[in-house]
Amino acid sequence: MTHFSFELTHRDAGSLARRGVFVTPHGPVQTPGFMPVGTQGTVKGVTIDQVAATGAHMILGNTYHLALRPGHETVRKLGGLHGMTRWEGPILTDSGGFQVFSLDAINHVDEEAATFRSHLDGSIVRLTPEHSIEIQESLGSDVAMVLDHVVALPAEKDIVQDAMERSIRWARRCLESATRDDQAKFAIVQGGLDVELRIQCARELAAMDFEGFAVGGLSVGEPPTEMYRITEATTPELPENKPRYLMGVGTPVDLIESVARGIDLFDCVMPTRNGRNGLAFTDSGSIKLRNAVHREDTSPLQESCPCIACRHSRGYLRHLFHAKEMLGPILLSIHNLTYYQQVMAETRAAIEQNRFNQYVAEKKQGWGIDA
Amino acid sequence: MTHFSFELTHRDAGSLARRGVFVTPHGPVQTPGFMPVGTQGTVKGVTIDQVAATGAHMILGNTYHLALRPGHETVRKLGGLHGMTRWEGPILTDSGGFQVFSLDAINHVDEEAATFRSHLDGSIVRLTPEHSIEIQESLGSDVAMVLDHVVALPAEKDIVQDAMERSIRWARRCLESATRDDQAKFAIVQGGLDVELRIQCARELAAMDFEGFAVGGLSVGEPPTEMYRITEATTPELPENKPRYLMGVGTPVDLIESVARGIDLFDCVMPTRNGRNGLAFTDSGSIKLRNAVHREDTSPLQESCPCIACRHSRGYLRHLFHAKEMLGPILLSIHNLTYYQQVMAETRAAIEQNRFNQYVAEKKQGWGIDA
Repeated sequence: MTHFSFELTHRDAGSLARRGVFVTPHGPVQTPGFMPVGTQGTVKGVTIDQVAATGAHMILGNTYHLALRPGHETVRKLGGLHGMTRWEGPILTDSGGFQVFSLDAINHVDEEAATFRSHLDGSIVRLTPEHSIEIQESLGSDVAMVLDHVVALPAEKDIVQDAMERSIRWARRCLESATRDDQAKFAIVQGGLDVELRIQCARELAAMDFEGFAVGGLSVGEPPTEMYRITEATTPELPENKPRYLMGVGTPVDLIESVARGIDLFDCVMPTRNGRNGLAFTDSGSIKLRNAVHREDTSPLQESCPCIACRHSRGYLRHLFHAKEMLGPILLSIHNLTYYQQVMAETRAAIEQNRFNQYVAEKKQGWGIDA
Repeated sequence: MTHFSFELTHRDAGSLARRGVFVTPHGPVQTPGFMPVGTQGTVKGVTIDQVAATGAHMILGNTYHLALRPGHETVRKLGGLHGMTRWEGPILTDSGGFQVFSLDAINHVDEEAATFRSHLDGSIVRLTPEHSIEIQESLGSDVAMVLDHVVALPAEKDIVQDAMERSIRWARRCLESATRDDQAKFAIVQGGLDVELRIQCARELAAMDFEGFAVGGLSVGEPPTEMYRITEATTPELPENKPRYLMGVGTPVDLIESVARGIDLFDCVMPTRNGRNGLAFTDSGSIKLRNAVHREDTSPLQESCPCIACRHSRGYLRHLFHAKEMLGPILLSIHNLTYYQQVMAETRAAIEQNRFNQYVAEKKQGWGIDA
């Protein structure tokens, strides 16, 4: 496999944090790295030039949404996700497993497929591991995720184990059905909050020929400490020389706590979703822009932030939200995405300088989070 | 008055079209020119860098909206409209007269003031000519419009005449109450669809010391031919050496037909409002992006258009509208604003080359409009 490589360039002396470069057909991804989410073929409210300007190396698209609308055949005819979006860097696509779980559609999982109702027109859709890969090959992403069976937590151990074991069988079917060697396949470790199941799943997947490994089924409502516990039990079981991706995570502190536990890649809707709702991330914690205290505040969201939102005053940004102007959500999405990329860039620098634990302590102090 | 100047650099040989430069404290405006509308302190859905990239020289803000929210005192404390928006070029502010008329609020006009209910909280607001200027001085625009009395058409001649005469008296009060010499005052010609009243109004206003003159109270539902008739009757009565601004106009053909009748400046919400609704302007007429015919169309909205929307396919843009993604309205707003600026740039070049009538004929042919 010459299209992909992952090189660990530095390990932090005081934690499991790793500094690396994941190379794809559309260029390198510096890790640890954060992927903005482009569910329906666009990072919500942000032009593709603006996404690049935030410092993002890789973005994410969703198989489930794009297969339903505009349809993966249409995406293919429009040049794939790269041709449609004009994003020139790497793209990762989720498999659809999480959306089937999270969209709360009437759904049913058997050994062959996940069956669910479309949230658009109520029609019945059957998604097999093979079909998920076929869709992702049409989308043309650099990284395809395997279809997994995600269960709601808490759940009985036998339910979690059954879904985990099915996820392993489905992962193998994904690997066997794939036809593009310019598309990496990442496996997904399941097993709920059960360390024993997580380790078993990680070991079985690690024995297969995947270019990367994800930790899935977390960030679904459990306390962060539980997520950290499962993450730090799982990463030691994964190959050292492959990237590790914690799916759907998270807050800024979740990111750096997970980097400290050996994670390389993240994605989350939080910067854009919170941005659309008027919440900005800063080194002093989050700011609710709608609050009256910002009414005549001439200071930017964050001093020294290079984003275009920070050329404006908090007072102006507050006005945009109160006046229901699109520019408010646009600017705060850009700021939050930029902030996440800045945290990742600082994280990479701190690892290279063997001061990652100190960096984590400093950030948490700024955010007002007890160590 | 050294802050402002207007130089006519060329007159078209075959029409009343003029090529000029209007100089303001925030730089020059090449005329004929089109001003994007930033009603509430933002061109809807477009960052200020993107507005500049469309080729716009001057933007517009609304006294009525900004006085109600966030309040002109707040705007002033946040650095005025320039400080809030970070727009570095000239800004023109409307006086509030048209909004009082168009928002259909319960309103009452007497000699002293226009009285109306706020569309935000129902409170009673009294707007005098002096207060309108005071607000605009707080907003810090380069050009303030006088408060005028706009009436719905059709109307009895005595009603139109009464409002026109009051508009002249209010224009004088605006001029007399103004305190900033770095803010130009533009008068507004009223008189409905009555040529005699329009000429009388234009002559009386032309005798006063305004830096520019607007034709107001048009584009309120009358046929375009009526608007053209009134425009061409009015412009000859206005000073040659001052810019002429046709308020709230219009479609691309309205712009060039009005340039042919001696107009220099325009503003209109049409490029952004239509863009948000999925309608794109092109040299072949307007395109409804939602239509099924665009589903798998890999061509851009317009070949050779330099805007960022035209880096994408029509198929992708259609998808964004069907998926209710903000990026659809954003990109089409940018395209339409760019298209309007391109028409104005072509207009200026055609005037300089004495081929403006030919240019108008070519554009109308492309748009499918009979000559």
